[in-house]
Amino acid sequence: MKLKVYADRMSQPSRAVIIFCKVNGINFEEIKVDLSKRQHLSEEFKEINPMEKVPAIVDGRFKLFESHAILIYLACAFPRVADHWYPADVSRTAKIHSVLDWHHSNLRQGAASFVFNTVLAPALGFPLNPQAASQAEKLLSSSLSKIESIWLKGNGRFLLGGFQPSIADLSLVCEIMQLEVLDEKDHSRILGPHKKVQQWIEDTRNATRPHFDEVHTILYKAKTKLAVQRSVRGNSETESSIKKLPSKM
Amino acid sequence: MKLKVYADRMSQPSRAVIIFCKVNGINFEEIKVDLSKRQHLSEEFKEINPMEKVPAIVDGRFKLFESHAILIYLACAFPRVADHWYPADVSRTAKIHSVLDWHHSNLRQGAASFVFNTVLAPALGFPLNPQAASQAEKLLSSSLSKIESIWLKGNGRFLLGGFQPSIADLSLVCEIMQLEVLDEKDHSRILGPHKKVQQWIEDTRNATRPHFDEVHTILYKAKTKLAVQRSVRGNSETESSIKKLPSKM
Repeated sequence: MKLKVYADRMSQPSRAVIIFCKVNGINFEEIKVDLSKRQHLSEEFKEINPMEKVPAIVDGRFKLFESHAILIYLACAFPRVADHWYPADVSRTAKIHSVLDWHHSNLRQGAASFVFNTVLAPALGFPLNPQAASQAEKLLSSSLSKIESIWLKGNGRFLLGGFQPSIADLSLVCEIMQLEVLDEKDHSRILGPHKKVQQWIEDTRNATRPHFDEVHTILYKAKTKLAVQRSVRGNSETESSIKKLPSKM
Repeated sequence: MKLKVYADRMSQPSRAVIIFCKVNGINFEEIKVDLSKRQHLSEEFKEINPMEKVPAIVDGRFKLFESHAILIYLACAFPRVADHWYPADVSRTAKIHSVLDWHHSNLRQGAASFVFNTVLAPALGFPLNPQAASQAEKLLSSSLSKIESIWLKGNGRFLLGGFQPSIADLSLVCEIMQLEVLDEKDHSRILGPHKKVQQWIEDTRNATRPHFDEVHTILYKAKTKLAVQRSVRGNSETESSIKKLPSKM
């Protein structure tokens, strides 16, 4: 039975899992769980993931969620996956786990909270929270600095000095790519100072082409849509703060 | 060369790693990094872990940080560790990764933030933040509910229906044990409704005796110390508010 991947490409860990499957020639069926339509909260999806989050997979009778766990599982369960994604060597694997664990409470927390509190919140009907955005930006910027000074230290072009990408590269780069939906000013203030991170994103994109660009297409479309919404919201707030716009995201 | 574990037993992931080593007969040297003396920020410790966090290990020339990565590494690198801690079976391991990944953004975030914002902050010279504490309590309580309804579902006494503990049981239980430093009222309001979690803590304690109790001793001492500090601070705050508000008395 074909692997099923439950995902919404607007979610960064969903994209990481989809790209991984495509790059490694894993035969899978992508099942869209539309977050904007709250499909992740449906009774049907709760049977797949009781935590109501994407991505999740079903492989035969085996169900799994949490993107890092999924990437590791796929790397181990599908024999065609090249070793560099998740090496058999215990020490090298341990370092990859270390990056992935660090990601949760640092880059992930900073990036997700910043994007939500500057762009996504109004589109989803929540108020903007500038204080939360400011705190998130500090964590995000410090995480990007640490990626450059600690994780990207070494000879290779990838994390941990690697010459080829691992699942950690894919997971973290997909997280940073979410910043594409920010407005230009925020995007260049945050990413501008981190040239090494920019090069690493480019290297990861090149190593996973054409799937990387194809799977990220949705993000560029969302960026335009969100910018239009912001502009309309801005005008309407200037002209009349009484009218409220229906959110489409 | 003997394994070195850099830890402060006041940190819950440090305790998980120390208990794991002791239970599994791993020969190690515990090197205290006193967080209250800011030793984790020293140049010497930065050589061990540039992220300035405990626990960290040095095994020969190999350095590693992030407690989950450490527990997995120890389970793989030390042949005496029993299979149930981190099974060789790919599907069972995947489920353990799923619990550990979930932990970061749920139980860990809720528990650590609640304890900090209700008990530790004043002791470390930071102001209390009731709003952050209230948000953290919601996440903590919902995480405990999910542990009961999702992770502890099954026939066994441990997570994922296990009949013996895995590294996920140890990590999550050590996290919850941090709630011991709360005052009685907070502690029973939060843990009281979760009888299944209480039983699971007891089962994990029993499965890792006597090391579990020995390593947690510091927490019971800290609880008394923090309660005394709160009482002294409470008295001085009452006195100063009385002094500040004579006209209203």
